[in-house]
Amino acid sequence: MATWLGTVVSPDESGFPAFAGAAWQRENVLRYGENPHQQAAVYVNAGAASGLAAGEQLQGKEMSYNNYVDADAARRAAFDHSEPTVAIIKHANPCGIAVGSDVADAYRKAFATDPVSAFGGVVAANRPVTAEMATAMGDVFTEVLVAPAVEPAALEILSAKKNLRVLIVEPPVAGVREMRIISGGMLQQNVDAVDAVGDDSSTWTLACGEAADAATLADLEFAWRACRSVKSNAILVAKDGAAVGVGMGQVNRVDSAKLAVDRAGDRIKGSVAASDAFFPFADGLQVLIDAGVSAVVQPGGSVRDEEVIAAAKAAGVTMYLTGTRHFFH
Amino acid sequence: MATWLGTVVSPDESGFPAFAGAAWQRENVLRYGENPHQQAAVYVNAGAASGLAAGEQLQGKEMSYNNYVDADAARRAAFDHSEPTVAIIKHANPCGIAVGSDVADAYRKAFATDPVSAFGGVVAANRPVTAEMATAMGDVFTEVLVAPAVEPAALEILSAKKNLRVLIVEPPVAGVREMRIISGGMLQQNVDAVDAVGDDSSTWTLACGEAADAATLADLEFAWRACRSVKSNAILVAKDGAAVGVGMGQVNRVDSAKLAVDRAGDRIKGSVAASDAFFPFADGLQVLIDAGVSAVVQPGGSVRDEEVIAAAKAAGVTMYLTGTRHFFH
Repeated sequence: MATWLGTVVSPDESGFPAFAGAAWQRENVLRYGENPHQQAAVYVNAGAASGLAAGEQLQGKEMSYNNYVDADAARRAAFDHSEPTVAIIKHANPCGIAVGSDVADAYRKAFATDPVSAFGGVVAANRPVTAEMATAMGDVFTEVLVAPAVEPAALEILSAKKNLRVLIVEPPVAGVREMRIISGGMLQQNVDAVDAVGDDSSTWTLACGEAADAATLADLEFAWRACRSVKSNAILVAKDGAAVGVGMGQVNRVDSAKLAVDRAGDRIKGSVAASDAFFPFADGLQVLIDAGVSAVVQPGGSVRDEEVIAAAKAAGVTMYLTGTRHFFH
Repeated sequence: MATWLGTVVSPDESGFPAFAGAAWQRENVLRYGENPHQQAAVYVNAGAASGLAAGEQLQGKEMSYNNYVDADAARRAAFDHSEPTVAIIKHANPCGIAVGSDVADAYRKAFATDPVSAFGGVVAANRPVTAEMATAMGDVFTEVLVAPAVEPAALEILSAKKNLRVLIVEPPVAGVREMRIISGGMLQQNVDAVDAVGDDSSTWTLACGEAADAATLADLEFAWRACRSVKSNAILVAKDGAAVGVGMGQVNRVDSAKLAVDRAGDRIKGSVAASDAFFPFADGLQVLIDAGVSAVVQPGGSVRDEEVIAAAKAAGVTMYLTGTRHFFH
């Protein structure tokens, strides 16, 4: 059974085939779907076992529908960085994400983002899980741990956490298109990840303020990458390679900024912020400025860019424009 | 070209076929995807043109990737109610939703939920759009209007809004399964909508407080239905058949409660609230109580139900338990 996901009739100059198809093989009937009254099943791409759906589960209870959704989001978030990275997901949004010298360091920093919300989260690492990371996970109730590998000594430690699902999934393949089912059809698009344009700060424009030093620039680059795994509207406040406040999924940008600032608390001093899309007005930015953020990165491109930049300038805040947006829904 | 979405090998007692497939026909290459640097296309189910992807666009600019995603969410939200209903969506979440005596009434109430965020929204009605509703939409910048029909007089009014996309889509078919693509595979589940269990308040349990009068009960039923179109964790505060405060997409329930309360402002007095899942602790509920909510509906089922109910009881707040959850991601 071959998968024929993709080209049936050769694509024209658009790159998108006139007809597309997919075939799946049932992997498992699940206990229930997104909610207990919904029946559900998980399928793998027929003839091409790869990715999360074909992951190898080493221990723990059966994966649930919501576990799959969150593990997908967690993996996306972790593998969107090249350094050792850990993401902790709740309801498809990161409540913690950080890069570190190794995955244990990254886990501790990601957990520190929001220790209360991390309870019951789904954790992804973009490197093999080490014994040190397994130890750091300690007594934190975690639904799923997904990683490209788990070292034997780590697995021994994790085996004490009977309910923890441990899932081994190979790293994501770069450059693949993604599909999203809508009523009566499907949307197909290039993935916004890993090789996205605008990641390198050398391509950014300094709109105002002093050029950031190397450490601040590294935090800005981290924040910019990390905010693209946060549901729009997204504001992510970061410090020392870790998110310290995440504002997600709001219908206006001001409220996302308030959420990020509230969650950062005292950690806001000396932190930087990224916004997944431009500030339509200065108000959302002002929330960040008033709280004490020292540098901001955002796409720019609003008709009110001038007044947005003026607000940053007046406060002595460094602002970079990327020219790239990172909506994610 | 027949669609063979669904059964290839007959389903066993699980109801889920061992193999599933889908075929799509390219409808349009889009200007871009979720973001300008992503290429994208929209496909319709081959041989079975129906649903949003096959909608008939009467006017306006070409539908964008994000327009499709938001229109899908808007349609789901509006058609989840049997009375005339209008939903206004931003970033896949309702920033306004209301039932009314007709769609014009429902639109005005839905717009009033959050007039600031409604700017640039996607509007869905579950009844034909009338001239009165078109007039009510007035000067509000709206990306898309999706409805089962638009009356000729309404279309004449709307034609003045050159950029407004008007999309005619038949009502959703009840009972169909939905698919969600994940890395390497697909999740299939029964849709949580329209005929969901637990909608009828006669099946609820009064956990504490006085039994609600007819008007309050109607608001509780509306809030309960409306919150299932809000991304989890969801808290929805309602009054007179309209949402007055929505807290969406948060990694903990307390913050969703705070968002809902902040957005409701003075309208909180005499309002009711729905929570898409149980309160794990009393703290989220307490935010609603302190703000002045008079009645709450939630699934129940937390190991701490006793202390959650005690908090409601102590405040003289009516609380119903549905036994059903409405996570939505």
